[in-house]
Amino acid sequence: MESIVRRDELTTRFRRGLFVGRFQPFHLGHIGAIRTALEHVEELIIVVGSAEYSHSDKNPFTAGERVEMIRAALKEANIDPSKYLIIPIRDVHIHATWVPFIVSQTPKFDVVFTNEALTSRLFKEREYKVERIPFLQRDDYSATEIRKRILKGRNWESLVPKSVAELLVKIHGIERIRELAVSDNPTGAEK
Amino acid sequence: MESIVRRDELTTRFRRGLFVGRFQPFHLGHIGAIRTALEHVEELIIVVGSAEYSHSDKNPFTAGERVEMIRAALKEANIDPSKYLIIPIRDVHIHATWVPFIVSQTPKFDVVFTNEALTSRLFKEREYKVERIPFLQRDDYSATEIRKRILKGRNWESLVPKSVAELLVKIHGIERIRELAVSDNPTGAEK
Amino acid sequence: MESIVRRDELTTRFRRGLFVGRFQPFHLGHIGAIRTALEHVEELIIVVGSAEYSHSDKNPFTAGERVEMIRAALKEANIDPSKYLIIPIRDVHIHATWVPFIVSQTPKFDVVFTNEALTSRLFKEREYKVERIPFLQRDDYSATEIRKRILKGRNWESLVPKSVAELLVKIHGIERIRELAVSDNPTGAEK
Amino acid sequence: MESIVRRDELTTRFRRGLFVGRFQPFHLGHIGAIRTALEHVEELIIVVGSAEYSHSDKNPFTAGERVEMIRAALKEANIDPSKYLIIPIRDVHIHATWVPFIVSQTPKFDVVFTNEALTSRLFKEREYKVERIPFLQRDDYSATEIRKRILKGRNWESLVPKSVAELLVKIHGIERIRELAVSDNPTGAEK
Amino acid sequence: MESIVRRDELTTRFRRGLFVGRFQPFHLGHIGAIRTALEHVEELIIVVGSAEYSHSDKNPFTAGERVEMIRAALKEANIDPSKYLIIPIRDVHIHATWVPFIVSQTPKFDVVFTNEALTSRLFKEREYKVERIPFLQRDDYSATEIRKRILKGRNWESLVPKSVAELLVKIHGIERIRELAVSDNPTGAEK
Amino acid sequence: MESIVRRDELTTRFRRGLFVGRFQPFHLGHIGAIRTALEHVEELIIVVGSAEYSHSDKNPFTAGERVEMIRAALKEANIDPSKYLIIPIRDVHIHATWVPFIVSQTPKFDVVFTNEALTSRLFKEREYKVERIPFLQRDDYSATEIRKRILKGRNWESLVPKSVAELLVKIHGIERIRELAVSDNPTGAEK
Repeated sequence: MESIVRRDELTTRFRRGLFVGRFQPFHLGHIGAIRTALEHVEELIIVVGSAEYSHSDKNPFTAGERVEMIRAALKEANIDPSKYLIIPIRDVHIHATWVPFIVSQTPKFDVVFTNEALTSRLFKEREYKVERIPFLQRDDYSATEIRKRILKGRNWESLVPKSVAELLVKIHGIERIRELAVSDNPTGAEK
Repeated sequence: MESIVRRDELTTRFRRGLFVGRFQPFHLGHIGAIRTALEHVEELIIVVGSAEYSHSDKNPFTAGERVEMIRAALKEANIDPSKYLIIPIRDVHIHATWVPFIVSQTPKFDVVFTNEALTSRLFKEREYKVERIPFLQRDDYSATEIRKRILKGRNWESLVPKSVAELLVKIHGIERIRELAVSDNPTGAEK
Repeated sequence: MESIVRRDELTTRFRRGLFVGRFQPFHLGHIGAIRTALEHVEELIIVVGSAEYSHSDKNPFTAGERVEMIRAALKEANIDPSKYLIIPIRDVHIHATWVPFIVSQTPKFDVVFTNEALTSRLFKEREYKVERIPFLQRDDYSATEIRKRILKGRNWESLVPKSVAELLVKIHGIERIRELAVSDNPTGAEK
Repeated sequence: MESIVRRDELTTRFRRGLFVGRFQPFHLGHIGAIRTALEHVEELIIVVGSAEYSHSDKNPFTAGERVEMIRAALKEANIDPSKYLIIPIRDVHIHATWVPFIVSQTPKFDVVFTNEALTSRLFKEREYKVERIPFLQRDDYSATEIRKRILKGRNWESLVPKSVAELLVKIHGIERIRELAVSDNPTGAEK
Repeated sequence: MESIVRRDELTTRFRRGLFVGRFQPFHLGHIGAIRTALEHVEELIIVVGSAEYSHSDKNPFTAGERVEMIRAALKEANIDPSKYLIIPIRDVHIHATWVPFIVSQTPKFDVVFTNEALTSRLFKEREYKVERIPFLQRDDYSATEIRKRILKGRNWESLVPKSVAELLVKIHGIERIRELAVSDNPTGAEK
Repeated sequence: MESIVRRDELTTRFRRGLFVGRFQPFHLGHIGAIRTALEHVEELIIVVGSAEYSHSDKNPFTAGERVEMIRAALKEANIDPSKYLIIPIRDVHIHATWVPFIVSQTPKFDVVFTNEALTSRLFKEREYKVERIPFLQRDDYSATEIRKRILKGRNWESLVPKSVAELLVKIHGIERIRELAVSDNPTGAEK
C-alpha cells in the first residue's frame, strides 16, 4: 500500500529533513505527517510552496496566512518550536532549477519527505534521499476535500486543527473561498 | 438583480474612479458602463488589463490596439477627453500585490467600478469603495460573445461602436481571431 | 548645435508621434518639447518610461504620480486633451525587444521625438523616423538638476509648472527625495 | 492539402532558414522536415522552443537533452554539421515580442519553415517569408503520439531515429514520462 | 542621537514585530537588536531580505546559509524559539509593491523595527508603526565591516556569535568572500 | 603564472567540455582558447552568456550577432563543425541556480574551461572539474580592450578574426559602440 512508511529505511536517523506542501489549508493530515517525520530527524524544514499565490481557487491563502496557520497548529499540538523551521518558497516554474532553488533557501538537509511523484523524482535526480510518509486517512485529510466542503457548506472544521479553524474564520477565509469560486477571471481583470 | 446599480450609493460624487477591463474587444456595453461611471466621478481611469498579452484566443489584441479602439470609440461617442485616462497594466500574477501595483501606476482614485468577483474582493480587502455598474444587455454585450460570433461568421458589428468595427477590419483582426482558433500552440512553438 | 530642430524635416506633418521620458519630475522643458511636437503631429503619445520604479534617488515618483503631474501640467498649459495620450511603460531590460514592446503598448505612430542616443538608435534600427526636439534652456530644465536643487534646498519651483510644484508638495515629494538621499540601501532592506 | 509544399515558392534558394520546434522528443518527421528545408537554404537554424521547460507531461525533456537528441540524430542521418545550428530559446510569454526575441538570439535568416498557425502569423506580421513544409506521415510522426505510446507501453521506437531511442533509454526518459503522468502537481509542490 | 530608542514609544507592547535585514553575515549587533525588539513584542518575524542573492561581494551567503546562521546564533543566545520566525524574502525590485509583498509572506504584524531610511519610509507610507532600534557599537557591528575584515585578513570573529564563526568556516565562507573579491564579473560569465 | 595550463591535468581526455564567454566581440584569444580546449575534449559547448543583452556599452552585440561571429570565425579557422556547439544562455541573476540552469540547457559535459573566479567557484561547488586555459597575449586579446580601441578610433582589426571584423562593419557595429558611449541612459528612456 502506497502510504505505508518503509520502516527499514526510517529506522535511520537524519540530521535535518524537508517537508514540502502548499497547505491550502493546513490540516490534521499534515500534523500527522510532521509528527512522523519528526521521529526521524532532529529538525524539520516545512516548505510552504507556491508562496506568491493567493486569492485563487486552488491557492486561496497567502503564504503569510499559511505560515500563521502552521505556527498556531504546531503550538496547539505541543510540537517543540526548536524542532522545525517554516520557509515560504515561490514557484520558479523551471523544474530543472526548482530543487537547487529550494536548497539555496533552506539550511542543509539530508532527507526529503514526500508522497508526490514529481517532487520525489526531482529530488531523486539530484541524489537526495526521499522518503514516503503515511498520511492519516488520506481521502479525507486533503486540502482539496476541505476547500470543496467549505464551498458546499459541509462540515470541514473536524479536518483541521482547532486553531486553524479559528484563524480561517477570523481572516474571513470562508467568504474568500466562496467568492473566488464565482469569479470567472483568475487574473483579477474584468472581461 | 445583480447588475442593477445601487442608486443610493451612487448619489455620492467621487473625485476619480477606476474601471478595469481587458476590452478584447471594446464594445457597446463598455461605452454604457463608462457613461454611467462618468455620472458619478469627475475623472475616470480606464485600466486596460492583461496589457502584455495579445495573439491568443482570449486576448487577440495588443494593449496598443485596445487603447486605440477605446480612444476612437469614446471620440465617436462624444465623451469629453478631459474626463478620462487610459492606462495599460500588465498582469502581475501575484494577487496579493495586484491592487498596490495598479495604485502605483495610476493617479489617486477613490472608487472602483467593477462587477467581477475577484477584482471586487481584492480592492475591498484594501478598503477601497467598490461599486457595481449595470452593463446594458449583458449577455450580448460581452467580449466573449463577440469573439465567438467573429469565429462563426455571425453578425458582431452591431455589438461594437462603428469606429471599433472599422479598426478591427483595418488591422485584419477578423483573420487574426480565426487563425488563432486553429493554432494548437499558445506559445507560438511548433510541436 | 545639437538641440536645434531640423526644420526642413519637421515641415512634414505626421499622424501620430511618440515622446519618451521618465519625467522625474515633469518640468517646463517637457512642456516646451510637447508644444513643439504637437506642431507636427495630430496626436502625441507621451510614454512614461521606467514605470515600475519609484522611491529611488533617480526615480523618486511612481508612474501614477508622474501621470498625474503630466495631466495637471498639460491642463494648466491649456493643451487640448484630445491631442495626447499618456502611457506608462515598464522597463523590459532587453534592448532588443524594447521598441517592439513599446509598439505593442501604444496606438500606431509614425515619428519618434527624442534627443537620447540609445532611444534614437533603437528606433532607427527598426526603421522608425526619429526627430530631435529643442529643449528650452536644457541645462536648467533637467530633472536631474531639479532633484539636485530639491536636495540642496535651493529654488526648484521656477523650473516646473505651478501645478506640478503643488502636487509635489501635496504628496510630500520633497521629504521623499531627501529621505531617499540618506538611504544606503536601494532595495529597502536593512544591512 | 495542407502539408503539401508549395513547390513554386521553394524553387527559390534562401541564405538561411529558421525551423522552430519543441522536439519532445525529436522524431523521424523532424528529420524529414529538416532534409526538405536544407534543399532550399544554405544553413538552417533549428530553434528548440520552450527551452526552460522540462519534467512536465508536455515537455518531459530539458533543452539540453533535446539538443543532444538532435545532434545525435542529425549525425546518424549524415547531415553535414556545417549546414545547421541548434539554438534553444525560452518562452517569452508575450506574443508581441516573441519574433523580435528570436531574431535577437539567432543569426540573420530570410525564411521560416513552419506549419503552425500562430508561429506563421507572428512571423508574417513582421514581414518574414514563411513556408509550409511537408511532414512525412504526420499522424504517426508526432511528438504527442510518441509520448502517448511510451505511456501506454506500445511501440514508439520505430518513430524516432535509433540514436534518439538509445538516448531516451540512457537518460531514463521512459520512466520519467510515466512518473510525470501520475504526478498531480505540475509545480512540484505537495498539496 | 539617532540610535537611541525612543523609550516613550517602546513602553507600548505589540503583538508581533517585523525586523528586516540581509544578514551578510548575521552579527552581534543583530543579536542586540533582536533582544531589544523582543522586549516589546510577543513574537518577532525576522525577514531575511535579498533572499535570492548569493555569491556576490555584497551578498556572499545564500538565504539558506543565513537562516542557518540566525537559527544557530539565537540558540546560542538562549532566545526562546517560540518567540521568533525567520522568513526569507526575495527582492521584488518594485518599491511600490515591496511592503505589500512582505505583508503577503508573513503573519500579521503591528510594528516594524528598522533604522534604514527607505525601509522606514515605505512602511510609514502604508501606515505601519515604525520604531528605531539601538544597534550596539554600530560602526563595528556592521556586516560591511565584517566582510572588509575577512577580505583583509583582520580579526572578524569577535564581531559575530561563536556559532556563526564556526558555520562560516565550515561552509568555506572565508574563501568564498576572498574569491568573489577577485572576480571581475558579477553574473558569472567569462568576458 | 595564472594563465599557464596545468598540463598534468589536461593530459586527460574528456568527452565534452564547456567554455563560457560573453564574446563582446569574439576575438583571437577566444580562438586560441577553443583550439586548446579542443585538444582535450571530443566536443566543446561554447556558451554565449548574458544572451538577452545588447546595445549597451559592455554588451553591444545581440546573442544572434555573437553566434554569427563565432560561427564565421571558426569556419575561417577551419575548425571542424562536428566538434562544437554554440548555445546562447541568458543571465538568471540568481547565482545559486546559474550552474543548474546551464546544465539544463546543454548536453551533458564533464569539464569546464574558464579563468574567471566566480564561474570557477560556482562549478566547483557543484563538483564539476574546472580547468584554467591559457589565453594568448591576454592584455591585448580582451574584449574590453577591443571595445576601447573601437571607441578611440585605434586599430582593433588585428585583434579579431578577419571574418569577425567584416561582420562588425557589415552590421554597423562600430557606429553602434560609439553611439552607445554617448548615451546617458542604459534603459533607453529619456530623462
